[in-house]
Amino acid sequence: MQQEIKSRVVGVDISIKRTTYAIVDVRGNIHASDHFPTTDYTTANDFITALSEKIITMTEANGGYEQIRSIGVSSPSANFLTGCIENAANLPWKGIIPLGAMLRDRMGIAVAVGNDAHVSALGEYSYGCAHGMNNFIIVSLGHGIGSCIFSNGKVHFGADGFAGEIGHACVEHNGRECGCGRYGCLEAYCAEKGIIKTAQEMLEQSDEPSLMRSLDRISPKGIAECCEQGDKMAIEVYRKTGEILGLAVANYASILDPEAVIFTGGISNAGKWLFDPAYESFEAHVFHNIRGNVKFLRSTISDRERDVLGASALAWGIKEYSLFK
Amino acid sequence: MQQEIKSRVVGVDISIKRTTYAIVDVRGNIHASDHFPTTDYTTANDFITALSEKIITMTEANGGYEQIRSIGVSSPSANFLTGCIENAANLPWKGIIPLGAMLRDRMGIAVAVGNDAHVSALGEYSYGCAHGMNNFIIVSLGHGIGSCIFSNGKVHFGADGFAGEIGHACVEHNGRECGCGRYGCLEAYCAEKGIIKTAQEMLEQSDEPSLMRSLDRISPKGIAECCEQGDKMAIEVYRKTGEILGLAVANYASILDPEAVIFTGGISNAGKWLFDPAYESFEAHVFHNIRGNVKFLRSTISDRERDVLGASALAWGIKEYSLFK
Repeated sequence: MQQEIKSRVVGVDISIKRTTYAIVDVRGNIHASDHFPTTDYTTANDFITALSEKIITMTEANGGYEQIRSIGVSSPSANFLTGCIENAANLPWKGIIPLGAMLRDRMGIAVAVGNDAHVSALGEYSYGCAHGMNNFIIVSLGHGIGSCIFSNGKVHFGADGFAGEIGHACVEHNGRECGCGRYGCLEAYCAEKGIIKTAQEMLEQSDEPSLMRSLDRISPKGIAECCEQGDKMAIEVYRKTGEILGLAVANYASILDPEAVIFTGGISNAGKWLFDPAYESFEAHVFHNIRGNVKFLRSTISDRERDVLGASALAWGIKEYSLFK
Repeated sequence: MQQEIKSRVVGVDISIKRTTYAIVDVRGNIHASDHFPTTDYTTANDFITALSEKIITMTEANGGYEQIRSIGVSSPSANFLTGCIENAANLPWKGIIPLGAMLRDRMGIAVAVGNDAHVSALGEYSYGCAHGMNNFIIVSLGHGIGSCIFSNGKVHFGADGFAGEIGHACVEHNGRECGCGRYGCLEAYCAEKGIIKTAQEMLEQSDEPSLMRSLDRISPKGIAECCEQGDKMAIEVYRKTGEILGLAVANYASILDPEAVIFTGGISNAGKWLFDPAYESFEAHVFHNIRGNVKFLRSTISDRERDVLGASALAWGIKEYSLFK
């Protein structure tokens, strides 16, 4: 006779604008999913009360709450070691929020909390193109540049949970000023604002015609569309961006010897315009022993699904991934 | 009644010039130790036959071979995953040498084989100043620059066993030519030849008096001795070297968030002349969230002991550290 088992978990992705929550089974099938604006709640307490009620409602309508084994939560500025959101720059709640403990107390089951960059890698490892890879790097290209290292089949958190800060690696001695106050950081060239700045500089420094001149607002997406139409200057913007990205990732990979570098985030939609020059620069700069051995991949899961799936993987591995319980 | 246990291991350190072997207990006490020239044996087979006999003789004279639980071996170009020495540039034996299997077959006990840089970190973790640290970096400064990453309490090997190649991180776009054929590598500035080159360049480009001009042969040790006597130009050689080292290690640490960076190798004997400017440059360049949190340490074990102790730690952790058996 087969006894009842708890066969599902809840994955929660808190992001700046919206919070997504979903019921997920161990194979990564999403059985139900919904979302609400994160900014609707001015206190963490109200947010957690609302989230708890929404989870109960959804699970009761989809097989029952008793099927849920545990909950995994992805959030910016989350510290996996403490289960807290710590001084999040872009969330409405300030200071140290003991999110994991608060949610666990309300829900009565185990809760694991992870940093969005780390959870993202866990999602790719569990259900995406990093499956079976014990050593890889994930690099997310968007407003900022985040990354996460997988070492020996586990997230490398570092001593304080800050590992993976490729965005502020110095790629140009005394180069462009970065939002962090230093000069020459990767983000200042290859994140959203950096790419826009490169385009603006090129447009200012030349009289050549370019489709970019007729864009209402210069954006990485708009520049990529100009590339598709054969615009030389737009292609050069991504070539330059790719060259710098490739150099930084080569230094990163020379140290870590990953099986693959997996790119996610909006900027990666530029596709070949970015990644062809990036890979060429990567191969030129990477340590010769690993040249030709490191795969450049684009994520096979959508940005939105990845974090919910990663949070569910966190929930499945609760013994391993939650120390604060 | 207490039954007999195997209470000791043998640690073997194969280095370019000499091979050291020692009987070590679990607390890192060395009960006997000896060495012989590695280059005495032109074939790997002869080398392993001699090594086996020497180990038997030493153990029989020191408590008996039956007390030995296992053997750990440190070697350049060793691949921990296969137990082989693979295409060692600086050892007399070419090609792929299945050292672990050969030694195991002769000795009748388990053998683990590790790469010298990784074993070195394991020695520091088991018996040196990295004890209790789950995340740290070890950087060895000598003829070349090697390094090893500890992640979550284990060596980070990378996908192919090449992780830790900080020596060939690019620190100066289109800078000095490196022995590896590329330009601007850290090794070209901060390893032995690089430091000598910096000194020579400074001596050529200026007429200022310097004690370095009266050295028979310019060496990192000689330059450090000039520093001790207050020689301005010698101090400037190490200041410049430290500045570059600090920048490279800052990029390394920003990615990995280690608890400490531990320096080993002959060049680190330059002490404050190198590490004061290196730490200053490190703090200026490291990601702000970890600034002030990363310790700069010099190894507390002698270079010679570290590898034998690391090899013995490999032997103690044989289940974990030997996959090829």
